[in-house]
Amino acid sequence: MTQRQVKAAVLLIGDELLSGRTQDVNLQTIAKFLAPLGVQVAEVRVVPDVPDEIVAAVNALRARYDYVFSTGGIGPTHDDKTADAMAAAFGVGIDVREDARAILQALYKDTSSLNEARLRMARIPDGASLIANPVSKAPGFQIGNVFVMAGVPSIMRGMLEDIGHRIEGGAVVRSRTVRAKGIGESQIAQGLQQLEDDAGGAVAFGSYPWFTPEGFGVHLVARSADAAALEKAASDLMNLIRDKGGQPEEVGEAT
Amino acid sequence: MTQRQVKAAVLLIGDELLSGRTQDVNLQTIAKFLAPLGVQVAEVRVVPDVPDEIVAAVNALRARYDYVFSTGGIGPTHDDKTADAMAAAFGVGIDVREDARAILQALYKDTSSLNEARLRMARIPDGASLIANPVSKAPGFQIGNVFVMAGVPSIMRGMLEDIGHRIEGGAVVRSRTVRAKGIGESQIAQGLQQLEDDAGGAVAFGSYPWFTPEGFGVHLVARSADAAALEKAASDLMNLIRDKGGQPEEVGEAT
Repeated sequence: MTQRQVKAAVLLIGDELLSGRTQDVNLQTIAKFLAPLGVQVAEVRVVPDVPDEIVAAVNALRARYDYVFSTGGIGPTHDDKTADAMAAAFGVGIDVREDARAILQALYKDTSSLNEARLRMARIPDGASLIANPVSKAPGFQIGNVFVMAGVPSIMRGMLEDIGHRIEGGAVVRSRTVRAKGIGESQIAQGLQQLEDDAGGAVAFGSYPWFTPEGFGVHLVARSADAAALEKAASDLMNLIRDKGGQPEEVGEAT
Repeated sequence: MTQRQVKAAVLLIGDELLSGRTQDVNLQTIAKFLAPLGVQVAEVRVVPDVPDEIVAAVNALRARYDYVFSTGGIGPTHDDKTADAMAAAFGVGIDVREDARAILQALYKDTSSLNEARLRMARIPDGASLIANPVSKAPGFQIGNVFVMAGVPSIMRGMLEDIGHRIEGGAVVRSRTVRAKGIGESQIAQGLQQLEDDAGGAVAFGSYPWFTPEGFGVHLVARSADAAALEKAASDLMNLIRDKGGQPEEVGEAT
């Protein structure tokens, strides 16, 4: 039985990612979290803290993919525009919601410290469900097929724990990676093309050169949802390297 | 005199970025390279090694932004689909071109070693100009307002050296960053909103919380193309922190 391919988009929100101030690491975390659930990240966009840009991107992505995962822009300051933009994208209202307020209230027991800024973090679009934040409490939310998470990596990782059970995954794409030293891409290009052709779409092959002080070489990666085809592909890659006089080494199930 | 804002998009191409196998670092390099030239990165997309996806993304981005910078997919193997996709996006032909072949020929002096796979790297869309590759020779190319570069970070950085002189930048947006320890975002949110309102669009303010074993705090960033407005903004941020009982520290001109 062939399972459906389930695809997701990631939407990274924040001026600081575009300016180069901040190096995103959330994409990699999300991709590696989703892969074993049977969800492949198929597209990523990075947009600034500009409501119209967020609305346009999320509406394009949620129509096209099974799921969308956003990070960033749900904090207490004026440059956190994601929650309102998500409400606008879905055409629903947004206000401070009691369940979200209660979470913050428990954190800031002194009522006076739950100030206006902090209450911004309890603004949840109508119809959304909360995503628990085990790190700093202020919740994310799910609206439709869109999961809205914090941008701070430790908080984002925490929120993923409350997302896995909501995902209906499909075929799990696994990968095998073969490393060769002293072999260049151009030496194995033809053989690799042949393997890709022979696999008839069941396996995707990737070739990634590496250069280090110890020399150069290539990592060859096979990806497939078909366990038998993947096993054959890994073996074929080892043989391809050996045919070129190299000593292949399998380097684990990197994604 | 107010200079024009010049905006760019970055298009990162490669299955390995979407799967999480590879952590992109090129975006940050490109953004920091362009900023002093007066070009702001306004949007980023990451797409797989799928021709239709590359074509759709580059056509959307090149119509909307002054420049597009792509990375990845110009090597010798079958999964390198960027050059052909760029030709398709521009509706022009593509073939092995003599100037590009000559560069590779000089590298692989033994003619027999300039095999079919390596010659793929001399496939250049009609009308494109080459981008020199001081690291591994195989060139990138510029077609229209699109700069097509390698994905390997060291090679990509080398190619940028042949791009700066082709860029017509506009207003240079500079930034100032103020760090405060023991002050949370919610304490300065209102004051920050006020500063943003008062600046009337001349300055953009960002707020980025930090958490380390030594404690917590916030980085406040002001960005502006107006030097006087930026100077005032930095001073205002220092005062905002002091008003809340904090000890502000300026942490250099991070982007």
